[in-house]
Amino acid sequence: MSPKQFHLNAFLMGVGHHEAAWRHPRTEERDVLDVAHFQELGRIAERGKLDSVFFADGLAVGPRIERNTLAVFEPVTLLSAIAAVTAKVGLIATASTSYNEPFNLARKFASLDHISGGRAGWNIVTSAGEDEARNFGYTELPEHARRYERAQEFVDVALRLWDSWESSAVVLDPERGVFADPSKVHTVDYDGPRFTVRGPLNSPRTPQGHPLLVQAGSSESGKDFAARYAEAVFTAQRTLAEGQSFYRDLKSRLARYGRAADELKVLPGLVPYIADTEAEAIALEQEFTDLISPDYALGQLSRMLGVDLTEHALDAPLPPLPEITDFEGNKSRFELVKELAENERLTVRQLIGKLGGGRGHRSFAGTPTQIADELQSWFENGAADGFNIMPPYLPGGLEDFVDKVVPILQERGLFRTDYESDTLRGHYGLEQVESRYAETRSEVSA
Amino acid sequence: MSPKQFHLNAFLMGVGHHEAAWRHPRTEERDVLDVAHFQELGRIAERGKLDSVFFADGLAVGPRIERNTLAVFEPVTLLSAIAAVTAKVGLIATASTSYNEPFNLARKFASLDHISGGRAGWNIVTSAGEDEARNFGYTELPEHARRYERAQEFVDVALRLWDSWESSAVVLDPERGVFADPSKVHTVDYDGPRFTVRGPLNSPRTPQGHPLLVQAGSSESGKDFAARYAEAVFTAQRTLAEGQSFYRDLKSRLARYGRAADELKVLPGLVPYIADTEAEAIALEQEFTDLISPDYALGQLSRMLGVDLTEHALDAPLPPLPEITDFEGNKSRFELVKELAENERLTVRQLIGKLGGGRGHRSFAGTPTQIADELQSWFENGAADGFNIMPPYLPGGLEDFVDKVVPILQERGLFRTDYESDTLRGHYGLEQVESRYAETRSEVSA
Repeated sequence: MSPKQFHLNAFLMGVGHHEAAWRHPRTEERDVLDVAHFQELGRIAERGKLDSVFFADGLAVGPRIERNTLAVFEPVTLLSAIAAVTAKVGLIATASTSYNEPFNLARKFASLDHISGGRAGWNIVTSAGEDEARNFGYTELPEHARRYERAQEFVDVALRLWDSWESSAVVLDPERGVFADPSKVHTVDYDGPRFTVRGPLNSPRTPQGHPLLVQAGSSESGKDFAARYAEAVFTAQRTLAEGQSFYRDLKSRLARYGRAADELKVLPGLVPYIADTEAEAIALEQEFTDLISPDYALGQLSRMLGVDLTEHALDAPLPPLPEITDFEGNKSRFELVKELAENERLTVRQLIGKLGGGRGHRSFAGTPTQIADELQSWFENGAADGFNIMPPYLPGGLEDFVDKVVPILQERGLFRTDYESDTLRGHYGLEQVESRYAETRSEVSA
Repeated sequence: MSPKQFHLNAFLMGVGHHEAAWRHPRTEERDVLDVAHFQELGRIAERGKLDSVFFADGLAVGPRIERNTLAVFEPVTLLSAIAAVTAKVGLIATASTSYNEPFNLARKFASLDHISGGRAGWNIVTSAGEDEARNFGYTELPEHARRYERAQEFVDVALRLWDSWESSAVVLDPERGVFADPSKVHTVDYDGPRFTVRGPLNSPRTPQGHPLLVQAGSSESGKDFAARYAEAVFTAQRTLAEGQSFYRDLKSRLARYGRAADELKVLPGLVPYIADTEAEAIALEQEFTDLISPDYALGQLSRMLGVDLTEHALDAPLPPLPEITDFEGNKSRFELVKELAENERLTVRQLIGKLGGGRGHRSFAGTPTQIADELQSWFENGAADGFNIMPPYLPGGLEDFVDKVVPILQERGLFRTDYESDTLRGHYGLEQVESRYAETRSEVSA
């Protein structure tokens, strides 16, 4: 067995990442509303011994309601129902630091961690949509920099709340009538510019201590935030060279925060089209491309770029784009799309085809062996600690990955053949976290 | 079969409502941290064809951490895990209007309703604890009246959000590539003193339209709020006469809001001690009373009454209490405890014994037949539409109720022998709700 193995997360979305997935005969369109579909995806991921499953989220219905199949389940609630039918696979939910209270969010993830026996992860987002802001009393999107300042304070408070119960605080001694040792349960007494929170959290310490912290922003603020807090990063990188550059950049930032390079796992996204021959795989991808509705795709592209393209000619290049400094939305996605269009001199129609599979994430069509080769190459050449697998259609695209690609990775010693841990942090090779308050006390008593 | 049947909710709390339940040999203390315990309670309730299970909640760890076994799971997350192992029983979660955003809360309950196939209920609370306020940036508890004003606006916004998708909005036509009909998905454009929310909700209309709305405050503000919004009310009534008076009062308020008396179900609480003989049942209750820790009980009583009793002599009567107008906490519980102590001239120790089983709710020790008689009497004498069953210990106390009392109620035709509906609203005899926006449109087009 290879001494080093990589990590695999299944990024699940409706009936697949391809925007037209639900129109393809390999999917069942009603599945987007059916919890049993998502529970089955959790079971499939667990069959493949994947580290985790993950749900993105947004706090608005999004543009083009007539085509938007994604807005159904709040992720933590959904993952709790998936936890009930699985035993090992990690469960990562997206939640916003801009439109929640730290106490409520810390508590919700603590509950998921208790319910799942230590399998909860939090993908931390700052919510880049103006339509989201308008559901929470704002008339416009809060500035990018302000959102990250709030995110930092928010996570600081959440971490303190998760630490408010030491792991040995619960005593459960019915003879003496003692549930918990109050000297091991701490107020956090946080008083900052945005939040004032006394604590303690109303939840005993969870199996993991705190959930796995995940982040996906690749702007400068996003990368610094990740280097400070994140334990896994989902990222969109289209070429090996870009992947290597991002990997080096992010890992080099960790030392500033006193962290080792191994404490953060970099997981680039991949949208795999899998078939027995390369030609069949390419034809399969083309089937999905042919189902794209240009008007829906134009709406999505307009949103990513901050310009209205809905009346723009499909066979012309992009119009001039705003400077990134003037763009307050998702800056890394903006840059990626802009560079893709410029570097490959794409028309809008061509750009839409390239983006349709994974909204900027890399697509790859090939045989199971070709896909395994591609993953191995990125992993062994310093571009990835693992991968964020984004099946273009579900459940079939995940089943093919689990049943056809994973066994090849296992044979090569690149991926586990069984779970060696019960917790999500364990799958990612991370330690359980002890309370900061416990450390302080043991120092005092030493 | 009797033409009129009553409703049964199981109010679940840790390993039982009695504050010393976890010290009794009939419970397993570790169950308070184990989701499998709560899933089993859901299954037992469903075996008894109960309308629903219900979890209370608070947003602070509460006083006396050393004895507090209650603060583990966020209720919606927990109920989602219970939804996964049950098919029919309703799932009611408490959530606060004071420390949430309407969009997030409406979305969370919509998710639970989708996941459970139409079994979600929301027990609306305004959060009466100062310790809760301090976890959300407040230095003191917001005033009772202000909390209810916010609650009213909050529920108004949530109802609009649940209405933002008409039931026929989801089209799911893969041929035409249409997921939803945008003309049936509405912004809510709410702009009020506390909330500004554009909408629509990022969730299609749920099986029930909106969750069953439940309320438990019995102050004047609470009763008016219930008459306006609630479809079920949990209430603590200690005698048949008090129960009749409350029932008449609450039902009489409904007409002001254009509602029929039958649109709100009144469910008084009952803590049943069940045994084959009355003497055994009384002895069982006494076993629990003997396990009460006075110091913990004094902390709870202090909280209910807004005075510090922790140094007060156990065998003396209560000290003078504040006027109810000066008490900003849970006013109905304050009044109930004050009246109980005064009417029965109880010492603090006696009061603690009376309150230990259900924090002011009525306890009743008897044979299954005696308990069935008692419920029938309240139901047939205008004090109840059903009951909020609060087992003093779990799971045994719920099992005994389901396996010994329910069959008697079924034989008498007072309770269903099988579910006749798939939704919580259906169990309570309520219609599914259509969107207000659908009504407007059909009027326009008519």
